[in-house]
Amino acid sequence: MQHFISQDTLLKMKPRYRAQLINSLSGFKSANLIGTRDEQGNNNLAMFSSVVHLGASPALVGFITRPNSVARHTLANIIHTKHFTINQVHEGFWRAAHQTSASYNAEQSEFEQTDLTPQDIDGFSAPFVKESLLKYALTLREIVPIELNGTQLVIGEISDIICDDMAIKADGYIDIESLHTVAISGLDSYHTSKRLSRLSYAKPGVNPQDISLNGVIED
Amino acid sequence: MQHFISQDTLLKMKPRYRAQLINSLSGFKSANLIGTRDEQGNNNLAMFSSVVHLGASPALVGFITRPNSVARHTLANIIHTKHFTINQVHEGFWRAAHQTSASYNAEQSEFEQTDLTPQDIDGFSAPFVKESLLKYALTLREIVPIELNGTQLVIGEISDIICDDMAIKADGYIDIESLHTVAISGLDSYHTSKRLSRLSYAKPGVNPQDISLNGVIED
Repeated sequence: MQHFISQDTLLKMKPRYRAQLINSLSGFKSANLIGTRDEQGNNNLAMFSSVVHLGASPALVGFITRPNSVARHTLANIIHTKHFTINQVHEGFWRAAHQTSASYNAEQSEFEQTDLTPQDIDGFSAPFVKESLLKYALTLREIVPIELNGTQLVIGEISDIICDDMAIKADGYIDIESLHTVAISGLDSYHTSKRLSRLSYAKPGVNPQDISLNGVIED
Repeated sequence: MQHFISQDTLLKMKPRYRAQLINSLSGFKSANLIGTRDEQGNNNLAMFSSVVHLGASPALVGFITRPNSVARHTLANIIHTKHFTINQVHEGFWRAAHQTSASYNAEQSEFEQTDLTPQDIDGFSAPFVKESLLKYALTLREIVPIELNGTQLVIGEISDIICDDMAIKADGYIDIESLHTVAISGLDSYHTSKRLSRLSYAKPGVNPQDISLNGVIED
């Protein structure tokens, strides 16, 4: 039974109810931990469900921050060091990843509070999450203000990528399902995945075909 | 075995390989069809994996477009009518949804080409996808240029929502898994989901608890 919710109804909803509802509309979201470091050398780690691919050349990724959120330290640190890491969350530490969204003080590292392990690489002033099987270093390129609601799109350029070898397929596709990467729906629901298939590049007048994990059309 | 890919290696990759690789980094992506209509009344439908939640109050959703892509008609139509629809893709029509990304002419409606059904609501100048079980109408609020790579963040405000009744839970969370909504990884891989759990709001010093689909802490 299709239910019709008008804008008028939306506006009258209690804020928490509306937040749950609206957060469910965009579909499945990525689950990533963003690692940063402050001026005093304190490591920070925060959960984001808004990481979005922006382009492959240059290799750009963005995420949305809101002012005065628990993620305010993330933004302040990125502005200071210009560096951050993005670490895909997998089935082995999704509860710890969720817990990083608690409102800790700047001096309380979410790594220690959640038993995740910081991992450094030389010359890069932001920590990786050792437990993550797909992670990368980014340098701040631009902060785009979204004046409609005071959020910001933070854009980084990818430099170094660390990924489990076996997951990278012949055509460059990374099998994140084999890494047990989780997805988020709404504000707080976590999901594993089951592949339907990869599909061939769509062309007019030809039905898309299943392709193998390595990107080859299957017979 | 962890594999380390440097920026230098990235820059030397063949463009298609790099596109597959970089598109895999952000994690699972939403699968949505965006419906628009042109000046001549032609319906257009295009697949996007970049729809992102921006805020609940006002209810804002954004997506990324790139210039000269097959989705150029989508942007032109939105600029003209100010209206568009977002329709979650489910397991029943994911192949058809993928096929909308073929490079059809403006006069060829992707609805007809892929056997999806346009659904109109009064006074709204963009078509919904009848087959979709969670869809909503948006009015253009802003187009934010991303000068780094010539893409744009298109932002709409949600007005009317159409959703299967049973999927809306007591606290406003919509169980998109029960709607068989699919997720995307990379450029062309489609996935169904299996819920791990919903988790309680994170607080310092307290482990997150499983909550029911209706948002209640389980014993």
